[in-house]
Amino acid sequence: MITTRAYSAASATSPLASDVLQRRQLTSTDVQIEILFCGVCHSDLHQARNEWSEFMPTQYPCVPGHEIVGRVTAVGSAVTRFAVGDLAATGCMVDSCGACSACAASDEVYCEKGSTFTYNSPDPHTGGHTLGGYSEAIVVDERFTFKVPGHLDLAGVAPLLCAGVTTYSPLRHWKVGPGQKVGIVGLGGLGHMAVKFAKAFGAHVVLFTTSPSKIEDGLRLGATEVVLSKDPAQMAQHAGSFDFILDAVSAEHDVNAYLQLLKRDATLCLVGVPEKPMAIHSLSVIMGRKSLSGSIIGGTAETQEMLDFCGQHGITADIELIPIQKINEAYDRLAKSDVKYRFVIDMASLKQ
Amino acid sequence: MITTRAYSAASATSPLASDVLQRRQLTSTDVQIEILFCGVCHSDLHQARNEWSEFMPTQYPCVPGHEIVGRVTAVGSAVTRFAVGDLAATGCMVDSCGACSACAASDEVYCEKGSTFTYNSPDPHTGGHTLGGYSEAIVVDERFTFKVPGHLDLAGVAPLLCAGVTTYSPLRHWKVGPGQKVGIVGLGGLGHMAVKFAKAFGAHVVLFTTSPSKIEDGLRLGATEVVLSKDPAQMAQHAGSFDFILDAVSAEHDVNAYLQLLKRDATLCLVGVPEKPMAIHSLSVIMGRKSLSGSIIGGTAETQEMLDFCGQHGITADIELIPIQKINEAYDRLAKSDVKYRFVIDMASLKQ
Repeated sequence: MITTRAYSAASATSPLASDVLQRRQLTSTDVQIEILFCGVCHSDLHQARNEWSEFMPTQYPCVPGHEIVGRVTAVGSAVTRFAVGDLAATGCMVDSCGACSACAASDEVYCEKGSTFTYNSPDPHTGGHTLGGYSEAIVVDERFTFKVPGHLDLAGVAPLLCAGVTTYSPLRHWKVGPGQKVGIVGLGGLGHMAVKFAKAFGAHVVLFTTSPSKIEDGLRLGATEVVLSKDPAQMAQHAGSFDFILDAVSAEHDVNAYLQLLKRDATLCLVGVPEKPMAIHSLSVIMGRKSLSGSIIGGTAETQEMLDFCGQHGITADIELIPIQKINEAYDRLAKSDVKYRFVIDMASLKQ
Repeated sequence: MITTRAYSAASATSPLASDVLQRRQLTSTDVQIEILFCGVCHSDLHQARNEWSEFMPTQYPCVPGHEIVGRVTAVGSAVTRFAVGDLAATGCMVDSCGACSACAASDEVYCEKGSTFTYNSPDPHTGGHTLGGYSEAIVVDERFTFKVPGHLDLAGVAPLLCAGVTTYSPLRHWKVGPGQKVGIVGLGGLGHMAVKFAKAFGAHVVLFTTSPSKIEDGLRLGATEVVLSKDPAQMAQHAGSFDFILDAVSAEHDVNAYLQLLKRDATLCLVGVPEKPMAIHSLSVIMGRKSLSGSIIGGTAETQEMLDFCGQHGITADIELIPIQKINEAYDRLAKSDVKYRFVIDMASLKQ
């Protein structure tokens, strides 16, 4: 086994603290990555605090982190795409069956047998549960390891592995492009990436936010217009005009108000997971033959495509870099949405 | 004006009763139809009793009826597709702007200026409100008048104009066909037509019903399998297996349970309008990138296509023929879903 330092939560109420864990010895198809930067996703906080106990109870010790960028330090004998010294990244998944129709389509996140998530999934290698990226090193199958454009700021690349691909994937799936009017609901970790991608794809981007303080930032990030969603008059001006809306809000909100803004036959895609079910009027989709859809993360081919696209277009996340010792403070701020727009851990701090 | 006998409701609490009303003189593009049969849609009952007061308050006197089949008795000078003596039908709409993108695509029901419904819409010709098919005669623009295959049972044709096209349209839009597993939720006026169409399109049809008493009828109408939706074990056997589900239930029910049964990227389309908003979990669409959609009626080109398809395949609705004098009794039975599967009024009874 490979011994590595990490930060873990010992229980739902424990703060994260320094720990030591074991990674598996490399199989022939594995890549070992020294982690340089790891993004802090809201899911990390939910999982560490066991806030999804109903459908995804947390196994402890819990090592969160699934926005991972680093450098290859060892490769298995059958690895073909990576060599020691290469930059490499891994995201929310580290394995899937590889054989079902979803895996065949590189939609591994929809694997019919269930994909293995980077933390808190049953780990077929160890018999325990998977341990994430708040750690010195990780061992991942090459299939779930990605090439990183070396000229980008690596700290800003880390969030691309979750916030990036989670928004890139539906914008591509629903073919967002020039000549289209696209709405992005919510300016947080996901929303700020969605604005950047929709802009880069050539769409007319309208950001919806509840915060007047975010108007300026929305325009800076690439929105053509910013609409204050609490103002019914502003909302009404956009009725029936959107080709696509990406809803990145996890707080409770009225989705019917956004369905009203879609054109005939258009789609609103959810990427946030509000705690309670949403109240949807059937007429909100019946009038105009509209669709309420959803999307989660993205497949491996799409993740690599997204990283390459970011390399070509100079896209990274807007981040706030922290040492690992500040992680509990960062969680408290994250719970209040007090971050623009992603905390990223400088993993060099773990060596201090 | 043209004087015609009819049955109307004078208020939300009045029974329907014999009445006399005026139709407009024909314009150059109008067709006058002597009505032979008119179907009784659940919407007729809702509208007559002002049960949609919130979003579509009823104007009185209210003459319901939008499943209309009859014979042409007069045509305007510019009418090209109909001659006196022809069979003709008209459905839920009698007008639309004709100029917007929806009308250009023959999706008149989604007309951006709002289509004119057959009853209870503002009537641009009279300045009053439109009056439906529980009547001796109706005057309709040729654009909203359809050819009827003469060899079909005309009483069974009437419900095709609403229940038929409302289910035909989404099954065609989402390209239901051979090799697909398609679910139909609910065996009522709409559901029984959906089973017939999905079967005719070559799909493997699974009917979902809450009533064991409907199993035999479901199989007779064309379902390959019938699932009792209250049995979780039967439901679980179908998880993740459907290419498309058409949900024709207007009563409160758990749509999440059906979203679970869809394949990745598949759609559940609502054609019923439950009174209250539905509680939808975002994960029900996020997991598997599924879509919750809706559809209403169908456009004029699609309505004619549907009637032609029914002519070729010998499809009509299963009906119970009643004289107009029995309409109030029929409404009471309809409110209890006590009809297999559509009441149709024999309009000859109005002359008695």
